[in-house]
Amino acid sequence: MTATTRSRLAPDERRSQLLDLGVRLLATRSLDELSIDLLAEEAGISRGLLYHYFGNKHAFHEAVVRRAADDLIAQTAPPAEGAPLERLQVSLAAYVDYVLANFEGYVSLLKGAAGGNEALRAIYDEVRGVLSERIFLEDPEGELIADTPHNRLVVRGWSAMTEELVITWGTEPAGVTKDELLEIVASSLPALIGPKSG
Amino acid sequence: MTATTRSRLAPDERRSQLLDLGVRLLATRSLDELSIDLLAEEAGISRGLLYHYFGNKHAFHEAVVRRAADDLIAQTAPPAEGAPLERLQVSLAAYVDYVLANFEGYVSLLKGAAGGNEALRAIYDEVRGVLSERIFLEDPEGELIADTPHNRLVVRGWSAMTEELVITWGTEPAGVTKDELLEIVASSLPALIGPKSG
Repeated sequence: MTATTRSRLAPDERRSQLLDLGVRLLATRSLDELSIDLLAEEAGISRGLLYHYFGNKHAFHEAVVRRAADDLIAQTAPPAEGAPLERLQVSLAAYVDYVLANFEGYVSLLKGAAGGNEALRAIYDEVRGVLSERIFLEDPEGELIADTPHNRLVVRGWSAMTEELVITWGTEPAGVTKDELLEIVASSLPALIGPKSG
Repeated sequence: MTATTRSRLAPDERRSQLLDLGVRLLATRSLDELSIDLLAEEAGISRGLLYHYFGNKHAFHEAVVRRAADDLIAQTAPPAEGAPLERLQVSLAAYVDYVLANFEGYVSLLKGAAGGNEALRAIYDEVRGVLSERIFLEDPEGELIADTPHNRLVVRGWSAMTEELVITWGTEPAGVTKDELLEIVASSLPALIGPKSG
């Protein structure tokens, strides 16, 4: 690799580090609270440089949410080994942990996506699509759940339930332990798709 | 009743009729599409009179959504007779029918409530609260589901699932029949709360 190539790569690496910082800041903040000013301060660089990297606040938010979505998808990847239900349950526990660890940002993403921000909606729909598709991809034999229109609808509803469970519990546990939450989340899909895997 | 009393009541009755008309118009329109102008045209009265009744567009939308929420709660009231699960299932079928019959307005209510419109959010939360509370009110002996923090969390998640199922199916049935949808909705709560009522 020549010095020229390295210097051409550097801005991408810098941008990538800034996105990671944005994701960390977003864990405990809403998108509205994640400003270019805050990122500049935390990164110790000028606002001007950040505008150079991201263009404007919307593009910056979109890039940070995009990175957070990629992180979520990576961190919830099911393990390679095990029965479909076991692998799914490891993935689900990772999903719960991710949402709880990135709570403020996740809630504000939901709000933005549901409220009509098309860019956030597209990222949100993509994440939900990837997570749902996994149920069928990780279970090609239909051991846990056959790939039918009926079951795809059930998985869609179940995804909404899982998200609601984690957001509700994360907002106010109301006497439910985290283990109970995990148990509810882990047992819900097998319960919904019938005796096959109950 | 004196003539004076009647004439004092008349504006309320008129306002009430206008709200019913607003709810009917909202069935096939989003809130954004439900303007004071449209209501004036459909009701055959002046815009000025509508502003007199409702103040401004936001107050008008809030009043129409409030009325729609009351309609939804009334139309989904469980029957007085029957086992808790049977009564719940009649209520759920009525919920599915209501949402499908008032689809555009319902979806736009969700969008407004989720996107940060506090007035719509409050009405939405109230409706969801009433519908969820019913599960426990209609089943005081805990025959179907005991009133515990754990089960309240499950019901919260299940409510989100039910809504997602109806909205997804109403947007695109994707090969699933309405009977299948009703069966998924009706069987989901018993499935989630265990063998007691499975």
